[in-house]
Amino acid sequence: MKAQSKIENLTSQGKHVCVGLDTDPEKIPRYFFDYPNPVLEFNKTVIENTSHLAAAYKINFAFYERFGASGFEIIEQTLDLIPENILTIADAKRGDIGNTSMMYASSVFDHFSFDSVTANPYMGYDSAKPFLDYKDKITFFLGLTSNKSSSDFQKVKLADGRHLYELVITTIDGWNSNRNCGVVFGATNEDDLNRSMNILKAKYILLPGIGAQSGNLRSVVNAFKNSLHTDYLINISRALIYCSNGNDFPDLLQRTISDYHSEINNS
Amino acid sequence: MKAQSKIENLTSQGKHVCVGLDTDPEKIPRYFFDYPNPVLEFNKTVIENTSHLAAAYKINFAFYERFGASGFEIIEQTLDLIPENILTIADAKRGDIGNTSMMYASSVFDHFSFDSVTANPYMGYDSAKPFLDYKDKITFFLGLTSNKSSSDFQKVKLADGRHLYELVITTIDGWNSNRNCGVVFGATNEDDLNRSMNILKAKYILLPGIGAQSGNLRSVVNAFKNSLHTDYLINISRALIYCSNGNDFPDLLQRTISDYHSEINNS
Repeated sequence: MKAQSKIENLTSQGKHVCVGLDTDPEKIPRYFFDYPNPVLEFNKTVIENTSHLAAAYKINFAFYERFGASGFEIIEQTLDLIPENILTIADAKRGDIGNTSMMYASSVFDHFSFDSVTANPYMGYDSAKPFLDYKDKITFFLGLTSNKSSSDFQKVKLADGRHLYELVITTIDGWNSNRNCGVVFGATNEDDLNRSMNILKAKYILLPGIGAQSGNLRSVVNAFKNSLHTDYLINISRALIYCSNGNDFPDLLQRTISDYHSEINNS
Repeated sequence: MKAQSKIENLTSQGKHVCVGLDTDPEKIPRYFFDYPNPVLEFNKTVIENTSHLAAAYKINFAFYERFGASGFEIIEQTLDLIPENILTIADAKRGDIGNTSMMYASSVFDHFSFDSVTANPYMGYDSAKPFLDYKDKITFFLGLTSNKSSSDFQKVKLADGRHLYELVITTIDGWNSNRNCGVVFGATNEDDLNRSMNILKAKYILLPGIGAQSGNLRSVVNAFKNSLHTDYLINISRALIYCSNGNDFPDLLQRTISDYHSEINNS
């Protein structure tokens, strides 16, 4: 199924929660260590107890790559557990010169069969094109990120008065002929988000920063509702997947995603 | 050995060639397919025939990751073949929020034991700090890259009249308390390089863009010689590792790196 169809099907059902699989063995309930592959078993439990409400699963490559080759096997095995109708996101912040980006695109889309990827726009169009050439896959470009230091460069003022991140988001419109562009916009930047709704149109929006990073969920959701922009994903990683350390973990996963889902739909 | 010591030892001997291991099975001589692991055997031949003159080996993650888990095993096996005194560079263009960058840093420095990494500065200081905290490792931040579209954002004019890449390179000076910052500067940007020599001081410089990308080697080397800046690495990937398709490959590797080495030292 096309990535665009997946996300649109799910958001039209009011599903906007993206589950961030930032799985850290030091933070997962101890009972998973009774299994031969604790990280994979943990991911399985998260998926089984959230897939009824999840719009996407975002696999943060850093948390797997740190284990080298075996970590990449866990990514492959985790992808096999995700229901076919739910969007998968390779959160790898890619971006390199053309022939290298082509390899990265082939890696995430051909080898791993992800539906979408996150990419860093700093190197410009020719670094993005190999990803965009996969018409049925979505590439989420970093616009304004959720971390404090996003102000260092992304919020720098340009000669024309805009912030750099506004130029980036606007430029992406020219890259969107396949309607497969997305933007990463940190939910921690509430005022910037409200000011940017106009330039976020016609792109898929991935919003990290809710939960452990303290973005205001209600305010973010209202920005989208007020703009009639429905194709947005609210990423929740730590606040969801580390909701409990005990045997009540599966139940609490269900309750936590349900709470986020309700808050989004009742905002 | 500290990464800083490695690079300084080698450049003080006039060694500046960084060998880019962008190994693509479709481009390597056919005879490597007689071996059980053609890519690894190819890398072994490249290393054996260039290590007498190489200052660094740069492993471009994209070319390995496309094979998933098995590609990461080849990275590990390749690193074992590189002599201890030569700098190793994880060319992975990293950069993410703090807790994720910490994982990436742990991956390249603890798991793989690379001496250095390339990083994307777009997310700012807190995305870079986990790399910089490894005092004896070098982080090369993208300044101005070698691709054509580097002009899209890196060369945008800021309100203060500078280009974005100049702000990035200058800002990095404030991150350099451990003297472990480097800058990636595309050799294809000859005029910008000459204008930037002043802000490149006291940082290790990695220059892609010579060879297949057509940067002017002599002009780049002279910019450094004129500024008495000795800690620079000229990356050569395709023009070196694909120098021959036949049985003369080992000999031609030696001749090609020797030619680059001589041209650098006689410029």
